[in-house]
Amino acid sequence: MVVILKNNPDEGQLQSLIHWLETKNVQVTQSLGESNHILGLIGDTSHLDMDLIGALDIVESVRRIQEPYKKANRKFHPDDTVIEVGNVTLGGDELVLIAGPGAVESEEQILQIAEVVKAAGAGILRGGAFIGRSSPYSFQGLGEEGLKALAKAGKSTGLPVISEIMQISQLDFFADIDIIQVGARNMKNFDLLKELGKSDKPVLLKRGLSATYEELLMSAEYVMSQGNEKVILCERGIRTFEDYTTNTFDISTIPVLKKLSHLPVVADPSHACGRAALVVPLAAASVAAGADGLMIEVHADPAHARSDAQQQIAPAAFAELAETVRTIRKTVKPE
Amino acid sequence: MVVILKNNPDEGQLQSLIHWLETKNVQVTQSLGESNHILGLIGDTSHLDMDLIGALDIVESVRRIQEPYKKANRKFHPDDTVIEVGNVTLGGDELVLIAGPGAVESEEQILQIAEVVKAAGAGILRGGAFIGRSSPYSFQGLGEEGLKALAKAGKSTGLPVISEIMQISQLDFFADIDIIQVGARNMKNFDLLKELGKSDKPVLLKRGLSATYEELLMSAEYVMSQGNEKVILCERGIRTFEDYTTNTFDISTIPVLKKLSHLPVVADPSHACGRAALVVPLAAASVAAGADGLMIEVHADPAHARSDAQQQIAPAAFAELAETVRTIRKTVKPE
Amino acid sequence: MVVILKNNPDEGQLQSLIHWLETKNVQVTQSLGESNHILGLIGDTSHLDMDLIGALDIVESVRRIQEPYKKANRKFHPDDTVIEVGNVTLGGDELVLIAGPGAVESEEQILQIAEVVKAAGAGILRGGAFIGRSSPYSFQGLGEEGLKALAKAGKSTGLPVISEIMQISQLDFFADIDIIQVGARNMKNFDLLKELGKSDKPVLLKRGLSATYEELLMSAEYVMSQGNEKVILCERGIRTFEDYTTNTFDISTIPVLKKLSHLPVVADPSHACGRAALVVPLAAASVAAGADGLMIEVHADPAHARSDAQQQIAPAAFAELAETVRTIRKTVKPE
Amino acid sequence: MVVILKNNPDEGQLQSLIHWLETKNVQVTQSLGESNHILGLIGDTSHLDMDLIGALDIVESVRRIQEPYKKANRKFHPDDTVIEVGNVTLGGDELVLIAGPGAVESEEQILQIAEVVKAAGAGILRGGAFIGRSSPYSFQGLGEEGLKALAKAGKSTGLPVISEIMQISQLDFFADIDIIQVGARNMKNFDLLKELGKSDKPVLLKRGLSATYEELLMSAEYVMSQGNEKVILCERGIRTFEDYTTNTFDISTIPVLKKLSHLPVVADPSHACGRAALVVPLAAASVAAGADGLMIEVHADPAHARSDAQQQIAPAAFAELAETVRTIRKTVKPE
Repeated sequence: MVVILKNNPDEGQLQSLIHWLETKNVQVTQSLGESNHILGLIGDTSHLDMDLIGALDIVESVRRIQEPYKKANRKFHPDDTVIEVGNVTLGGDELVLIAGPGAVESEEQILQIAEVVKAAGAGILRGGAFIGRSSPYSFQGLGEEGLKALAKAGKSTGLPVISEIMQISQLDFFADIDIIQVGARNMKNFDLLKELGKSDKPVLLKRGLSATYEELLMSAEYVMSQGNEKVILCERGIRTFEDYTTNTFDISTIPVLKKLSHLPVVADPSHACGRAALVVPLAAASVAAGADGLMIEVHADPAHARSDAQQQIAPAAFAELAETVRTIRKTVKPE
Repeated sequence: MVVILKNNPDEGQLQSLIHWLETKNVQVTQSLGESNHILGLIGDTSHLDMDLIGALDIVESVRRIQEPYKKANRKFHPDDTVIEVGNVTLGGDELVLIAGPGAVESEEQILQIAEVVKAAGAGILRGGAFIGRSSPYSFQGLGEEGLKALAKAGKSTGLPVISEIMQISQLDFFADIDIIQVGARNMKNFDLLKELGKSDKPVLLKRGLSATYEELLMSAEYVMSQGNEKVILCERGIRTFEDYTTNTFDISTIPVLKKLSHLPVVADPSHACGRAALVVPLAAASVAAGADGLMIEVHADPAHARSDAQQQIAPAAFAELAETVRTIRKTVKPE
Repeated sequence: MVVILKNNPDEGQLQSLIHWLETKNVQVTQSLGESNHILGLIGDTSHLDMDLIGALDIVESVRRIQEPYKKANRKFHPDDTVIEVGNVTLGGDELVLIAGPGAVESEEQILQIAEVVKAAGAGILRGGAFIGRSSPYSFQGLGEEGLKALAKAGKSTGLPVISEIMQISQLDFFADIDIIQVGARNMKNFDLLKELGKSDKPVLLKRGLSATYEELLMSAEYVMSQGNEKVILCERGIRTFEDYTTNTFDISTIPVLKKLSHLPVVADPSHACGRAALVVPLAAASVAAGADGLMIEVHADPAHARSDAQQQIAPAAFAELAETVRTIRKTVKPE
Repeated sequence: MVVILKNNPDEGQLQSLIHWLETKNVQVTQSLGESNHILGLIGDTSHLDMDLIGALDIVESVRRIQEPYKKANRKFHPDDTVIEVGNVTLGGDELVLIAGPGAVESEEQILQIAEVVKAAGAGILRGGAFIGRSSPYSFQGLGEEGLKALAKAGKSTGLPVISEIMQISQLDFFADIDIIQVGARNMKNFDLLKELGKSDKPVLLKRGLSATYEELLMSAEYVMSQGNEKVILCERGIRTFEDYTTNTFDISTIPVLKKLSHLPVVADPSHACGRAALVVPLAAASVAAGADGLMIEVHADPAHARSDAQQQIAPAAFAELAETVRTIRKTVKPE
């Protein structure tokens, strides 16, 4: 951490700041110049409150030099974290395709699509049961029944399953779900994250619409700080001024997170773009950029899906996508 | 709603779309041109799924003409909603100042500051008990004890009190809290909003960091759709590329929301800018732009606050601010 | 400037970096820790290329501590810059209203509106002659003839006049124009800025749609570095995800620029919001936040204006606006 | 175009609007409902001023249904535009690599790098001569001398060359330059675009930092409206809240522009991310997403480059990149 002091700081206040920092086991070095005066803080500064230091009379500004996340930080864990779920591994040599409908609509529907995506090479089955809709007047998902149908389809096909949780109180319903998804809206629901940190299930954490890379990693840190280190990071688009696409898919997230962190990184082009025609090129781009996996919404009859109709692709398109991305994977990450 | 068709739409599919729309009690008019073909949908279209229509083969795009919110919409409720809390009224002739510390730190602290802000003209006392922090290693608030201390300080001074809820499970602790605040991070926590819709306490709803005006009003609609129409809207800054300020305070929100909705609109310049020196000019601007109230973080000793140290102002600055905004109020809204 | 080194930097490379910095008259202090190593650079670092240092093998990142602008920096010029134009002064005690139509449409039109805005208290007359339109098929302004008509209306009413320049080659036409405006699109047209820096006319510099405060001040620095220190800064909205308004008017710009710089700061709510109904509240807010002046588009018959029809206000509305803001000015800046 | 009327519009005003529209050769159909009233405008509406209609008393809002660009629109030109420059073709079957240093630093430097990038498979040589820097105190390029050295290196290696123009007045210096580049800062410099529209040289047009897809296409339209249809579109990142990367590279631009327009689309990952380590994954992603070409900054000794030091890659890295993207191209666009 670096503390930039105002010109001519009061000597008494300066000494008392330095003394206080030293009681926190932080070593202080001073750089004195004519028009600026810098304190360099050495040691573990992750427990210091930047705001508090920044509010002092003699301080102009404070800048963090070290990343505030530790468990999620590649610097302290150089090796890739590899997460095993059923027969697949996320974060290792494998490229994992997570596929399935936006919403579980019935037992038949999810079972049928499970078989279809498995045949095309999907390794994990997805399906929404608790669905956040921007209008209170829209379909909100089948809830507990949806999770049961999803789990059944997973067992029947041998695919591990993933679904999104909205509230701590729903946690009991997720007993037979293999991966718990935290959606973009809940990325800063810190109570939920802490609760999931006590679970032993892998958590797929989606980037919030206006979250920075660092904030996403701090949310991962919330889960990991409670003991659960099986966190999968997911890019699904951010909000910008461009509204032709639902969100702006930030492809740089993939190589940046792989550099900053040891956790697996997955891309969700379906939610990012909100348009079926863009799913294939964005999926291909994600794998070319180094993603460990993809999450793709696939529906047997997209035009009649009960949610997200415009962004789901049909089974044939998914099969083609799967083949393309496997070839690209071999190019960018030869085994 | 307007449906733009692709060139040369299949006649059978077109007729079946029109038929289906008519079964939904929507009247359809057609505008046929050489290079485009438009359907105008007349009637209540708020229950139609735009995505579903947009996913049809013959459809190029769909645009909503009517606002998707109804109970929050000024078109259907031309008169201002006025909410009474204790001795103050929000949304009427009065300018209401909500003031207090970022976090309740102790019974003594909150009582002392309550007396101070009351003397300066505050009408409502604020204080955080459940605090969302971006780092799991930071102070997270006093929780239930904090709410008790806040309620006690409110009773002792006669000021109604407001505090933020994070989870449905905390609702019981809010029995003695007069207004329940939903923070920016929870603006799209639809389960929480629905639960608060069953309460009879006023709800202060903060705009999310990347939420549009329409999305904020749809979140208000979630609360109101359950029966609770006492919603107060609050602007607290959005996330943009400018990072000198914590967030970009969107002053236009105030006159726009007053036009689109009948609900009271309050501004929170403290969180928007994150710098004490900007709180006074932004507070003055908010009142000049027509805000019904202000929420200001005031701390007896800002530099030693346990959270948000940089954005809290001292009691003397608050007293001055209160005087300035009362004068401006008289200019823009003479009684 | 602070240089953060990678772990275990090569000693030879480190010594050669330090030696090179010292030849640049920069003094270097080192802060050595277990997991990080910081160099503090003291002295005038405005001529150092951050990118170049950041690209070195041993460097993790580089952060600037001092602002890169000097002539525009309040630290080195604590007193407000006051610019005299005709009978008005910008940046001093006076609140200056700059008003007139989006585009000069004819000699009669500009003369008529000049008299109207003067009567309502405007101190400077505005009118576009070279107009940048997003479509090549739209009205592009009267050009040189427009500037002549504007100058004539100015002379006739005694009001100084301002108009926008698009290209260096147009500079000769501005001989009778009192203030040269650089639009948002040209804020980073550095050649134009340097050319205006050789002029002795005041330059009103609008913030670009995606420009930070620092970038705006660096553009002012481009003008000032050539000798012309009469620069007026202008906020006119930035581009964000919210599209109900044309742009998001960033009210914080006003107090922030007044703090960082000694230059006058003016607000243009007309272009920021793009809606006539918002011009009055945003104008009031700007003055409450400390603006030295306002630029307002006024048209005798807004609905038939040849450009920007939706954001121009009628003469009566302007007269009312003028009265409101003068009263607010007295509250926030009593003489 | 669709015009949404206010409730109970004045009949006289409505008829006069309809009459006026019909004189403009626009056919009007009406959709009348209880709570809304819509006019559908059929025919060529590209010459109508939306603002002017929107400013009418009886109008609530106006929405464009047709794209405002014509010559750049794939609807009216379904076949891909293929641009030949020297031995390469942009927009056809070929994947074109444009490579070279950020800035031409000397005749020797540009000749040496030209040979290196040619050997690695580059088809076009780039090099900046007029360089826009955010600080007036930074290196601004060699200007005319730089262009001469670039043209010489091009002739010597047989590579066509590209460089950026800043001002109309520089046009004469570009006689021996094969492609004229318009930078992000000049994307809305409409006078420059119109001038280039009279040239017969291909124009590479970079997306502005805050420009929408539609605005980029409208700028292409400015060039094309003057007769020059050889426009190449280029994505180079937009400005968002994420500041780990210089800009946010919007990968969706590539498939979206290929759909909306028939013009070639090129990606510039170097400027988008500003970090050499990200150039390779973003280049691979761009080709996977369907780009017709890449523009890559290559420098013999990146750490000592006179500009953009952090984003240039070394020759060896470029050779590897070239091989990777050629393999990906074969996967996504088999010949």
